[in-house]
Amino acid sequence: MTKHPFDKALALAEIGPGCYAGMTSADYWNMVGPFGGTTAATVLQAVLLHPQRIGDPLSLTVNYAGALQEGAFEVQVHPVRTNRSTQHWTASILQHDAQGQSIVTTTATVITAIRRETWSVSDTPMPKVKTPAESELKSYDDPGIWLQRYELRLISGAIPSEWHGRGDNSLTQVWMRDHPPRPLDFISLAALSDVFFPRVWLRRATRVPAGTVSITTYFHAGPKELRETGAGYVLGQASAQEFRNGFFDQSALLWNESGTLLCSSHQIVYFKE
Amino acid sequence: MTKHPFDKALALAEIGPGCYAGMTSADYWNMVGPFGGTTAATVLQAVLLHPQRIGDPLSLTVNYAGALQEGAFEVQVHPVRTNRSTQHWTASILQHDAQGQSIVTTTATVITAIRRETWSVSDTPMPKVKTPAESELKSYDDPGIWLQRYELRLISGAIPSEWHGRGDNSLTQVWMRDHPPRPLDFISLAALSDVFFPRVWLRRATRVPAGTVSITTYFHAGPKELRETGAGYVLGQASAQEFRNGFFDQSALLWNESGTLLCSSHQIVYFKE
Repeated sequence: MTKHPFDKALALAEIGPGCYAGMTSADYWNMVGPFGGTTAATVLQAVLLHPQRIGDPLSLTVNYAGALQEGAFEVQVHPVRTNRSTQHWTASILQHDAQGQSIVTTTATVITAIRRETWSVSDTPMPKVKTPAESELKSYDDPGIWLQRYELRLISGAIPSEWHGRGDNSLTQVWMRDHPPRPLDFISLAALSDVFFPRVWLRRATRVPAGTVSITTYFHAGPKELRETGAGYVLGQASAQEFRNGFFDQSALLWNESGTLLCSSHQIVYFKE
Repeated sequence: MTKHPFDKALALAEIGPGCYAGMTSADYWNMVGPFGGTTAATVLQAVLLHPQRIGDPLSLTVNYAGALQEGAFEVQVHPVRTNRSTQHWTASILQHDAQGQSIVTTTATVITAIRRETWSVSDTPMPKVKTPAESELKSYDDPGIWLQRYELRLISGAIPSEWHGRGDNSLTQVWMRDHPPRPLDFISLAALSDVFFPRVWLRRATRVPAGTVSITTYFHAGPKELRETGAGYVLGQASAQEFRNGFFDQSALLWNESGTLLCSSHQIVYFKE
Protein backbone atom coordinates (compact mmCIF):
# COMPACT_ATOMS: atom_id res chain seq x y z
CA MET A 1 0.00 0.00 0.00
CA THR A 2 1.30 3.45 -0.86
CA LYS A 3 1.86 5.71 2.09
CA HIS A 4 -0.54 8.64 2.39
CA PRO A 5 1.16 11.99 1.52
CA PHE A 6 0.39 13.19 5.05
CA ASP A 7 2.21 10.23 6.59
CA LYS A 8 5.14 10.80 4.24
CA ALA A 9 5.25 14.49 5.23
CA LEU A 10 5.05 13.61 8.92
CA ALA A 11 7.69 10.87 8.87
CA LEU A 12 10.28 11.41 11.60
CA ALA A 13 13.37 9.37 12.46
CA GLU A 14 14.71 9.31 16.01
CA ILE A 15 18.31 10.52 15.97
CA GLY A 16 18.84 10.98 19.71
CA PRO A 17 16.88 11.26 22.96
CA GLY A 18 13.90 13.51 22.19
CA CYS A 19 15.45 14.45 18.85
CA TYR A 20 13.79 13.59 15.54
CA ALA A 21 14.86 14.23 11.96
CA GLY A 22 12.31 15.16 9.29
CA MET A 23 12.16 16.56 5.78
CA THR A 24 9.82 19.22 4.38
CA SER A 25 7.30 17.85 1.88
CA ALA A 26 6.58 19.26 -1.57
CA ASP A 27 3.06 17.84 -1.21
CA TYR A 28 2.24 20.32 1.59
CA TRP A 29 4.18 23.32 0.30
CA ASN A 30 2.65 26.74 0.87
CA MET A 31 3.85 30.01 -0.60
CA VAL A 32 7.01 30.54 1.44
CA GLY A 33 7.33 27.31 3.43
CA PRO A 34 5.41 24.24 4.51
CA PHE A 35 1.71 24.59 5.32
CA GLY A 36 1.62 25.66 9.00
CA GLY A 37 -0.75 22.82 9.85
CA THR A 38 1.90 20.24 8.97
CA THR A 39 4.43 22.12 11.12
CA ALA A 40 2.05 21.98 14.10
CA ALA A 41 1.34 18.30 13.39
CA THR A 42 5.08 17.57 13.19
CA VAL A 43 5.66 18.93 16.71
CA LEU A 44 2.81 16.81 18.01
CA GLN A 45 4.06 13.76 16.11
CA ALA A 46 7.46 14.02 17.81
CA VAL A 47 5.80 14.13 21.24
CA LEU A 48 3.65 11.11 20.35
CA LEU A 49 6.76 9.20 19.27
CA HIS A 50 8.64 9.94 22.49
CA PRO A 51 9.03 6.79 24.63
CA GLN A 52 8.30 8.65 27.89
CA ARG A 53 5.01 10.14 26.73
CA ILE A 54 1.93 9.54 28.85
CA GLY A 55 -1.65 10.19 27.73
CA ASP A 56 -3.16 11.84 24.68
CA PRO A 57 -2.82 15.38 23.35
CA LEU A 58 -4.74 17.97 25.35
CA SER A 59 -3.19 21.28 24.31
CA LEU A 60 -0.77 22.27 21.56
CA THR A 61 0.74 25.74 21.11
CA VAL A 62 2.99 26.31 18.12
CA ASN A 63 4.80 29.60 17.48
CA TYR A 64 6.02 30.23 13.93
CA ALA A 65 9.26 32.10 14.55
CA GLY A 66 10.41 31.84 10.95
CA ALA A 67 9.61 30.01 7.72
CA LEU A 68 11.07 26.52 7.41
CA GLN A 69 13.36 26.24 4.40
CA GLU A 70 12.95 23.35 1.99
CA GLY A 71 14.88 20.32 3.20
CA ALA A 72 15.92 18.67 6.44
CA PHE A 73 14.87 19.78 9.92
CA GLU A 74 15.13 18.53 13.49
CA VAL A 75 12.37 18.41 16.08
CA GLN A 76 13.47 18.48 19.71
CA VAL A 77 10.92 17.61 22.36
CA HIS A 78 11.43 17.48 26.10
CA PRO A 79 9.08 16.20 28.83
CA VAL A 80 9.71 18.99 31.32
CA ARG A 81 7.36 17.69 33.96
CA THR A 82 5.28 14.57 34.36
CA ASN A 83 2.43 14.66 36.85
CA ARG A 84 0.06 11.85 37.72
CA SER A 85 -2.24 12.51 34.79
CA THR A 86 -0.71 15.39 32.81
CA GLN A 87 2.64 15.83 31.12
CA HIS A 88 4.17 19.15 30.06
CA TRP A 89 6.41 19.32 26.99
CA THR A 90 8.55 21.97 25.40
CA ALA A 91 9.48 21.60 21.75
CA SER A 92 11.30 23.33 18.94
CA ILE A 93 12.09 22.82 15.28
CA LEU A 94 15.58 23.67 14.08
CA GLN A 95 17.33 23.90 10.75
CA HIS A 96 20.95 24.47 9.85
CA ASP A 97 21.89 27.39 7.65
CA ALA A 98 24.57 27.38 4.94
CA GLN A 99 27.22 28.02 7.61
CA GLY A 100 26.02 25.04 9.65
CA GLN A 101 24.55 27.33 12.29
CA SER A 102 21.44 26.05 14.02
CA ILE A 103 18.34 28.24 13.52
CA VAL A 104 15.13 27.87 15.53
CA THR A 105 12.15 28.11 13.17
CA THR A 106 9.45 27.04 15.61
CA THR A 107 8.88 26.96 19.37
CA ALA A 108 6.06 25.00 20.96
CA THR A 109 4.56 23.65 24.14
CA VAL A 110 2.41 20.55 24.34
CA ILE A 111 0.37 19.06 27.16
CA THR A 112 -0.65 15.41 27.09
CA ALA A 113 -3.13 13.96 29.57
CA ILE A 114 -4.49 10.66 30.72
CA ARG A 115 -8.23 11.29 30.53
CA ARG A 116 -10.90 9.53 32.50
CA GLU A 117 -14.61 9.42 31.84
CA THR A 118 -16.34 12.24 33.76
CA TRP A 119 -19.50 14.31 33.63
CA SER A 120 -19.39 15.88 30.17
CA VAL A 121 -21.52 18.31 28.20
CA SER A 122 -21.24 20.08 24.85
CA ASP A 123 -22.23 23.72 24.98
CA THR A 124 -21.46 24.52 21.36
CA PRO A 125 -23.80 22.54 19.15
CA MET A 126 -22.73 22.09 15.56
CA PRO A 127 -24.47 24.71 13.39
CA LYS A 128 -27.21 23.44 11.12
CA VAL A 129 -25.58 23.46 7.71
CA LYS A 130 -25.78 21.68 4.37
CA THR A 131 -24.43 18.14 4.23
CA PRO A 132 -21.03 17.53 2.63
CA ALA A 133 -22.74 16.13 -0.50
CA GLU A 134 -24.81 19.33 -0.85
CA SER A 135 -21.80 21.60 -0.36
CA GLU A 136 -19.68 22.96 -3.17
CA LEU A 137 -16.41 21.13 -3.78
CA LYS A 138 -13.70 23.78 -4.08
CA SER A 139 -10.59 23.33 -6.08
CA TYR A 140 -7.77 25.76 -5.63
CA ASP A 141 -4.72 25.96 -7.86
CA ASP A 142 -3.73 28.82 -5.73
CA PRO A 143 -2.28 29.94 -3.31
CA GLY A 144 -0.54 26.77 -2.18
CA ILE A 145 -0.09 23.25 -3.47
CA TRP A 146 -1.01 21.97 0.05
CA LEU A 147 -4.66 22.90 -0.55
CA GLN A 148 -4.80 20.01 -3.01
CA ARG A 149 -4.15 17.70 -0.06
CA TYR A 150 -7.58 18.56 1.35
CA GLU A 151 -11.08 17.94 0.10
CA LEU A 152 -12.86 21.18 0.96
CA ARG A 153 -16.63 21.42 0.53
CA LEU A 154 -17.60 24.96 1.18
CA ILE A 155 -20.77 26.03 2.98
CA SER A 156 -20.05 29.74 3.41
CA GLY A 157 -17.16 32.19 3.36
CA ALA A 158 -15.07 31.25 0.31
CA ILE A 159 -11.86 33.01 -0.67
CA PRO A 160 -13.27 36.06 -2.48
CA SER A 161 -13.35 35.63 -6.24
CA GLU A 162 -13.27 39.40 -6.63
CA TRP A 163 -10.92 41.56 -4.55
CA HIS A 164 -13.27 44.54 -4.38
CA GLY A 165 -12.30 45.65 -0.86
CA ARG A 166 -15.85 45.41 0.53
CA GLY A 167 -16.08 42.32 2.75
CA ASP A 168 -18.46 42.42 5.68
CA ASN A 169 -17.71 39.36 7.85
CA SER A 170 -15.01 36.79 8.46
CA LEU A 171 -16.99 33.56 8.90
CA THR A 172 -16.08 30.43 6.96
CA GLN A 173 -17.89 27.11 7.31
CA VAL A 174 -16.47 24.20 5.39
CA TRP A 175 -16.62 20.41 5.36
CA MET A 176 -13.12 19.07 5.07
CA ARG A 177 -11.02 15.96 5.13
CA ASP A 178 -7.67 14.74 3.89
CA HIS A 179 -7.37 14.05 0.16
CA PRO A 180 -7.20 11.16 -0.41
CA PRO A 181 -9.32 10.34 2.67
CA ARG A 182 -7.35 9.17 5.70
CA PRO A 183 -8.72 8.12 9.11
CA LEU A 184 -8.55 11.10 11.47
CA ASP A 185 -5.91 11.00 14.20
CA PHE A 186 -4.44 13.60 16.54
CA ILE A 187 -1.81 14.77 14.06
CA SER A 188 -4.22 15.20 11.15
CA LEU A 189 -6.67 16.99 13.45
CA ALA A 190 -3.86 19.36 14.49
CA ALA A 191 -3.19 20.08 10.81
CA LEU A 192 -6.90 20.52 9.95
CA SER A 193 -7.15 23.19 12.65
CA ASP A 194 -4.98 25.44 10.50
CA VAL A 195 -6.65 24.86 7.10
CA PHE A 196 -8.58 28.16 7.05
CA PHE A 197 -7.23 30.87 4.74
CA PRO A 198 -6.43 34.24 6.36
CA ARG A 199 -9.62 35.82 7.74
CA VAL A 200 -8.39 39.25 6.65
CA TRP A 201 -8.79 38.23 2.97
CA LEU A 202 -12.46 37.50 3.55
CA ARG A 203 -13.20 40.45 5.85
CA ARG A 204 -11.63 43.02 3.53
CA ALA A 205 -12.02 41.22 0.23
CA THR A 206 -8.46 42.37 -0.21
CA ARG A 207 -5.54 40.05 -0.59
CA VAL A 208 -2.70 41.16 1.64
CA PRO A 209 0.29 39.16 2.87
CA ALA A 210 -0.72 37.28 6.03
CA GLY A 211 0.59 34.39 8.09
CA THR A 212 -0.06 32.62 11.38
CA VAL A 213 2.27 33.73 14.17
CA SER A 214 0.97 31.40 16.89
CA ILE A 215 -1.71 28.71 17.07
CA THR A 216 -3.18 26.94 20.09
CA THR A 217 -5.39 23.87 19.73
CA TYR A 218 -7.31 22.25 22.58
CA PHE A 219 -8.22 18.64 21.92
CA HIS A 220 -11.64 17.53 23.13
CA ALA A 221 -11.57 14.31 21.12
CA GLY A 222 -10.01 11.17 22.50
CA PRO A 223 -9.26 7.94 20.64
CA LYS A 224 -12.96 6.96 20.73
CA GLU A 225 -14.15 10.15 19.02
CA LEU A 226 -11.34 9.88 16.45
CA ARG A 227 -12.35 6.31 15.66
CA GLU A 228 -15.98 7.38 15.30
CA THR A 229 -14.91 10.11 12.86
CA GLY A 230 -12.81 7.76 10.76
CA ALA A 231 -12.17 9.10 7.27
CA GLY A 232 -15.42 11.08 7.35
CA TYR A 233 -15.82 14.81 6.98
CA VAL A 234 -15.05 17.36 9.65
CA LEU A 235 -17.02 20.61 9.81
CA GLY A 236 -14.70 23.54 10.34
CA GLN A 237 -15.93 26.95 11.37
CA ALA A 238 -13.59 29.90 11.67
CA SER A 239 -13.98 33.60 12.28
CA ALA A 240 -11.92 36.53 13.49
CA GLN A 241 -12.75 38.69 16.46
CA GLU A 242 -10.46 41.70 16.08
CA PHE A 243 -8.23 43.10 13.35
CA ARG A 244 -5.85 45.66 14.79
CA ASN A 245 -2.54 47.17 13.78
CA GLY A 246 -1.06 44.32 11.82
CA PHE A 247 -2.59 41.32 13.61
CA PHE A 248 -5.92 39.58 13.92
CA ASP A 249 -7.12 36.65 15.99
CA GLN A 250 -9.03 33.66 14.64
CA SER A 251 -11.19 31.21 16.59
CA ALA A 252 -12.05 27.88 15.00
CA LEU A 253 -14.18 24.90 15.99
CA LEU A 254 -14.10 21.46 14.37
CA TRP A 255 -16.94 18.92 14.67
CA ASN A 256 -17.30 15.49 13.13
CA GLU A 257 -20.35 14.60 11.02
CA SER A 258 -22.26 13.31 14.02
CA GLY A 259 -21.84 16.68 15.75
CA THR A 260 -19.11 15.88 18.28
CA LEU A 261 -16.79 18.83 18.91
CA LEU A 262 -13.30 17.48 18.21
CA CYS A 263 -11.22 20.52 19.07
CA SER A 264 -11.23 24.27 19.50
CA SER A 265 -8.34 26.20 17.99
CA HIS A 266 -7.19 29.79 18.21
CA GLN A 267 -4.52 31.72 16.41
CA ILE A 268 -2.99 35.16 16.09
CA VAL A 269 -2.14 36.12 12.54
CA TYR A 270 0.06 38.79 11.03
CA PHE A 271 -1.22 40.85 8.12
CA LYS A 272 0.28 43.67 6.13
CA GLU A 273 -1.13 47.20 5.82
CA MET B 1 3.46 56.49 47.99
CA THR B 2 2.74 52.90 48.97
CA LYS B 3 3.33 50.36 46.25
CA HIS B 4 0.22 48.71 44.84
CA PRO B 5 -0.10 45.05 45.99
CA PHE B 6 0.05 43.98 42.33
CA ASP B 7 3.37 45.75 41.83
CA LYS B 8 4.68 44.19 45.04
CA ALA B 9 3.58 40.74 43.84
CA LEU B 10 5.14 41.31 40.41
CA ALA B 11 8.48 42.66 41.68
CA LEU B 12 11.38 40.83 40.05
CA ALA B 13 15.12 41.29 40.56
CA GLU B 14 17.56 40.47 37.76
CA ILE B 15 20.02 37.87 39.02
CA GLY B 16 21.63 36.90 35.72
CA PRO B 17 21.08 37.20 31.96
CA GLY B 18 17.38 36.50 31.40
CA CYS B 19 17.03 35.28 34.98
CA TYR B 20 14.81 37.04 37.50
CA ALA B 21 14.11 36.32 41.17
CA GLY B 22 10.64 36.80 42.61
CA MET B 23 8.63 35.89 45.68
CA THR B 24 5.05 34.62 45.89
CA SER B 25 2.64 37.12 47.40
CA ALA B 26 0.18 36.45 50.23
CA ASP B 27 -2.01 39.19 48.72
CA TYR B 28 -2.71 37.08 45.62
CA TRP B 29 -2.85 33.65 47.27
CA ASN B 30 -5.36 31.18 45.90
CA MET B 31 -6.30 27.84 47.43
CA VAL B 32 -3.14 25.85 46.65
CA GLY B 33 -0.79 28.43 45.19
CA PRO B 34 -0.68 31.93 43.74
CA PHE B 35 -3.60 33.12 41.60
CA GLY B 36 -2.77 31.88 38.07
CA GLY B 37 -3.23 35.37 36.66
CA THR B 38 -0.26 36.65 38.66
CA THR B 39 1.83 33.71 37.44
CA ALA B 40 1.00 34.59 33.82
CA ALA B 41 1.71 38.26 34.53
CA THR B 42 5.05 37.36 36.14
CA VAL B 43 6.23 35.58 32.98
CA LEU B 44 5.27 38.60 30.91
CA GLN B 45 6.89 40.98 33.39
CA ALA B 46 10.22 39.15 33.04
CA VAL B 47 10.05 39.47 29.24
CA LEU B 48 9.22 43.17 29.54
CA LEU B 49 12.22 43.68 31.85
CA HIS B 50 14.65 41.93 29.48
CA PRO B 51 17.08 44.43 27.92
CA GLN B 52 16.89 42.78 24.47
CA ARG B 53 13.11 42.92 24.22
CA ILE B 54 11.60 44.60 21.17
CA GLY B 55 7.95 45.61 20.84
CA ASP B 56 4.88 45.04 22.97
CA PRO B 57 3.17 41.80 24.03
CA LEU B 58 1.22 40.12 21.24
CA SER B 59 0.72 36.57 22.50
CA LEU B 60 1.28 34.88 25.86
CA THR B 61 0.89 31.15 26.53
CA VAL B 62 1.43 29.93 30.08
CA ASN B 63 1.28 26.26 31.06
CA TYR B 64 0.74 25.47 34.72
CA ALA B 65 2.86 22.35 35.19
CA GLY B 66 2.61 22.40 38.98
CA ALA B 67 1.54 24.68 41.83
CA LEU B 68 4.10 27.23 42.95
CA GLN B 69 5.01 26.77 46.60
CA GLU B 70 5.01 29.76 48.92
CA GLY B 71 8.35 31.56 48.76
CA ALA B 72 11.08 32.34 46.28
CA PHE B 73 11.04 31.49 42.59
CA GLU B 74 13.07 32.21 39.48
CA VAL B 75 11.79 33.25 36.08
CA GLN B 76 14.00 32.42 33.12
CA VAL B 77 13.24 34.06 29.79
CA HIS B 78 15.09 33.65 26.53
CA PRO B 79 14.68 35.57 23.24
CA VAL B 80 14.93 32.57 20.93
CA ARG B 81 14.50 34.49 17.73
CA THR B 82 14.26 38.16 16.86
CA ASN B 83 12.77 39.08 13.50
CA ARG B 84 12.31 42.55 12.06
CA SER B 85 9.04 43.17 13.87
CA THR B 86 8.37 40.11 16.04
CA GLN B 87 10.34 38.42 18.79
CA HIS B 88 9.81 34.86 20.05
CA TRP B 89 10.47 34.05 23.71
CA THR B 90 10.53 30.87 25.74
CA ALA B 91 10.13 31.13 29.50
CA SER B 92 9.88 29.03 32.61
CA ILE B 93 9.41 29.47 36.35
CA LEU B 94 11.50 27.32 38.67
CA GLN B 95 11.61 26.65 42.36
CA HIS B 96 14.05 24.68 44.48
CA ASP B 97 12.78 21.84 46.61
CA ALA B 98 14.01 20.93 50.11
CA GLN B 99 16.92 18.99 48.56
CA GLY B 100 17.92 22.03 46.49
CA GLN B 101 16.68 20.36 43.29
CA SER B 102 15.32 22.70 40.66
CA ILE B 103 11.62 22.07 39.79
CA VAL B 104 9.87 23.60 36.79
CA THR B 105 6.45 24.85 37.87
CA THR B 106 5.56 26.75 34.70
CA THR B 107 6.49 26.76 31.02
CA ALA B 108 5.56 29.57 28.68
CA THR B 109 6.06 31.16 25.31
CA VAL B 110 5.68 34.84 24.59
CA ILE B 111 5.66 36.82 21.37
CA THR B 112 6.32 40.54 21.36
CA ALA B 113 5.79 42.69 18.28
CA ILE B 114 6.48 46.15 16.98
CA ARG B 115 3.04 47.17 15.73
CA ARG B 116 2.31 49.72 13.08
CA GLU B 117 -0.96 51.45 12.33
CA THR B 118 -2.88 49.48 9.70
CA TRP B 119 -6.43 48.96 8.48
CA SER B 120 -8.27 47.80 11.60
CA VAL B 121 -11.78 46.67 12.43
CA SER B 122 -13.54 45.24 15.48
CA ASP B 123 -15.84 42.35 14.69
CA THR B 124 -16.86 41.62 18.25
CA PRO B 125 -18.76 44.59 19.60
CA MET B 126 -19.02 44.85 23.36
CA PRO B 127 -22.35 43.39 24.51
CA LYS B 128 -24.94 45.89 25.73
CA VAL B 129 -24.83 45.49 29.48
CA LYS B 130 -25.48 47.47 32.64
CA THR B 131 -22.91 50.10 33.57
CA PRO B 132 -20.42 49.34 36.34
CA ALA B 133 -22.40 51.60 38.73
CA GLU B 134 -25.58 49.62 38.03
CA SER B 135 -23.86 46.25 38.49
CA GLU B 136 -23.71 44.36 41.75
CA LEU B 137 -20.45 44.68 43.67
CA LYS B 138 -19.44 41.16 44.71
CA SER B 139 -17.41 40.41 47.75
CA TYR B 140 -15.94 36.98 48.16
CA ASP B 141 -14.30 35.70 51.34
CA ASP B 142 -13.94 32.50 49.47
CA PRO B 143 -12.33 30.71 47.67
CA GLY B 144 -9.11 32.73 47.53
CA ILE B 145 -7.74 35.83 49.20
CA TRP B 146 -6.67 37.06 45.73
CA LEU B 147 -10.30 37.84 44.84
CA GLN B 148 -10.12 40.71 47.31
CA ARG B 149 -7.52 42.27 45.01
CA TYR B 150 -10.19 42.84 42.39
CA GLU B 151 -13.28 44.99 42.30
CA LEU B 152 -15.82 42.74 40.59
CA ARG B 153 -19.19 44.16 39.57
CA LEU B 154 -21.26 41.31 38.32
CA ILE B 155 -23.67 41.55 35.39
CA SER B 156 -24.50 37.85 34.97
CA GLY B 157 -23.15 34.42 35.85
CA ALA B 158 -22.15 34.65 39.54
CA ILE B 159 -20.59 31.78 41.47
CA PRO B 160 -23.73 29.79 42.37
CA SER B 161 -24.99 30.53 45.86
CA GLU B 162 -26.66 27.11 45.94
CA TRP B 163 -24.86 24.00 44.69
CA HIS B 164 -28.00 22.29 43.40
CA GLY B 165 -26.41 20.58 40.40
CA ARG B 166 -28.72 22.19 37.84
CA GLY B 167 -26.80 24.88 35.97
CA ASP B 168 -27.72 25.56 32.35
CA ASN B 169 -25.01 27.80 30.90
CA SER B 170 -21.45 28.94 31.54
CA LEU B 171 -21.56 32.64 30.68
CA THR B 172 -20.20 35.26 33.08
CA GLN B 173 -20.16 38.98 32.35
CA VAL B 174 -18.45 41.17 34.91
CA TRP B 175 -16.98 44.64 35.20
CA MET B 176 -13.64 44.40 36.87
CA ARG B 177 -10.54 46.32 37.85
CA ASP B 178 -7.71 46.10 40.31
CA HIS B 179 -8.55 46.91 43.92
CA PRO B 180 -7.37 49.49 44.78
CA PRO B 181 -7.65 50.87 41.22
CA ARG B 182 -4.40 50.84 39.24
CA PRO B 183 -3.86 52.07 35.65
CA LEU B 184 -4.11 49.11 33.29
CA ASP B 185 -0.88 47.85 31.73
CA PHE B 186 0.08 44.68 29.89
CA ILE B 187 0.85 42.72 33.05
CA SER B 188 -2.38 43.60 34.83
CA LEU B 189 -4.34 42.83 31.64
CA ALA B 190 -2.64 39.41 31.51
CA ALA B 191 -3.74 38.79 35.11
CA LEU B 192 -7.31 40.05 34.52
CA SER B 193 -7.66 37.51 31.68
CA ASP B 194 -7.61 34.76 34.30
CA VAL B 195 -9.99 36.27 36.88
CA PHE B 196 -13.00 34.11 35.94
CA PHE B 197 -13.87 31.29 38.35
CA PRO B 198 -14.05 27.77 36.84
CA ARG B 199 -16.88 27.57 34.27
CA VAL B 200 -17.68 24.05 35.46
CA TRP B 201 -18.92 25.46 38.78
CA LEU B 202 -21.45 27.63 36.95
CA ARG B 203 -22.45 25.10 34.32
CA ARG B 204 -23.09 22.29 36.80
CA ALA B 205 -23.89 24.35 39.88
CA THR B 206 -21.58 21.86 41.49
CA ARG B 207 -18.32 22.75 43.12
CA VAL B 208 -15.61 20.36 42.00
CA PRO B 209 -11.83 20.78 42.14
CA ALA B 210 -10.71 22.64 39.00
CA GLY B 211 -7.66 24.53 37.81
CA THR B 212 -6.24 26.11 34.68
CA VAL B 213 -3.76 23.89 32.84
CA SER B 214 -2.84 26.30 30.04
CA ILE B 215 -3.86 29.87 29.13
CA THR B 216 -3.22 31.82 25.95
CA THR B 217 -3.88 35.55 25.72
CA TYR B 218 -3.75 37.58 22.50
CA PHE B 219 -3.21 41.29 23.10
CA HIS B 220 -5.13 43.62 20.82
CA ALA B 221 -4.44 46.67 22.99
CA GLY B 222 -1.32 48.71 22.55
CA PRO B 223 -0.01 51.49 24.81
CA LYS B 224 -2.62 53.92 23.43
CA GLU B 225 -5.58 51.68 24.33
CA LEU B 226 -4.09 50.95 27.75
CA ARG B 227 -3.70 54.69 28.42
CA GLU B 228 -7.29 55.28 27.33
CA THR B 229 -8.46 52.57 29.75
CA GLY B 230 -6.49 53.98 32.66
CA ALA B 231 -7.80 52.81 36.02
CA GLY B 232 -11.32 52.40 34.60
CA TYR B 233 -13.37 49.23 34.47
CA VAL B 234 -12.82 46.36 32.07
CA LEU B 235 -15.77 44.27 30.90
CA GLY B 236 -14.90 40.59 31.04
CA GLN B 237 -16.99 37.95 29.34
CA ALA B 238 -16.18 34.27 29.66
CA SER B 239 -17.85 31.04 28.64
CA ALA B 240 -16.96 27.44 28.04
CA GLN B 241 -17.46 25.57 24.79
CA GLU B 242 -16.98 21.93 25.72
CA PHE B 243 -16.72 19.94 28.96
CA ARG B 244 -15.31 16.50 28.27
CA ASN B 245 -13.59 13.83 30.32
CA GLY B 246 -11.86 15.94 32.91
CA PHE B 247 -11.20 19.14 30.95
CA PHE B 248 -13.12 22.10 29.57
CA ASP B 249 -12.10 25.07 27.46
CA GLN B 250 -12.91 28.69 28.27
CA SER B 251 -12.95 31.65 25.90
CA ALA B 252 -12.84 35.15 27.31
CA LEU B 253 -12.96 38.66 25.88
CA LEU B 254 -12.04 41.88 27.68
CA TRP B 255 -13.21 45.34 26.59
CA ASN B 256 -12.63 48.73 28.19
CA GLU B 257 -15.54 50.98 29.08
CA SER B 258 -15.48 52.70 25.71
CA GLY B 259 -15.92 49.34 23.98
CA THR B 260 -12.39 48.69 22.71
CA LEU B 261 -11.49 44.99 22.72
CA LEU B 262 -8.29 44.80 24.76
CA CYS B 263 -7.53 41.10 24.48
CA SER B 264 -8.98 37.68 23.77
CA SER B 265 -7.96 34.85 26.05
CA HIS B 266 -8.44 31.10 25.97
CA GLN B 267 -7.71 28.37 28.45
CA ILE B 268 -8.02 24.66 29.02
CA VAL B 269 -9.02 23.73 32.53
CA TYR B 270 -8.87 20.52 34.52
CA PHE B 271 -11.88 19.46 36.55
CA LYS B 272 -12.56 16.45 38.72
CA GLU B 273 -15.30 13.86 38.19
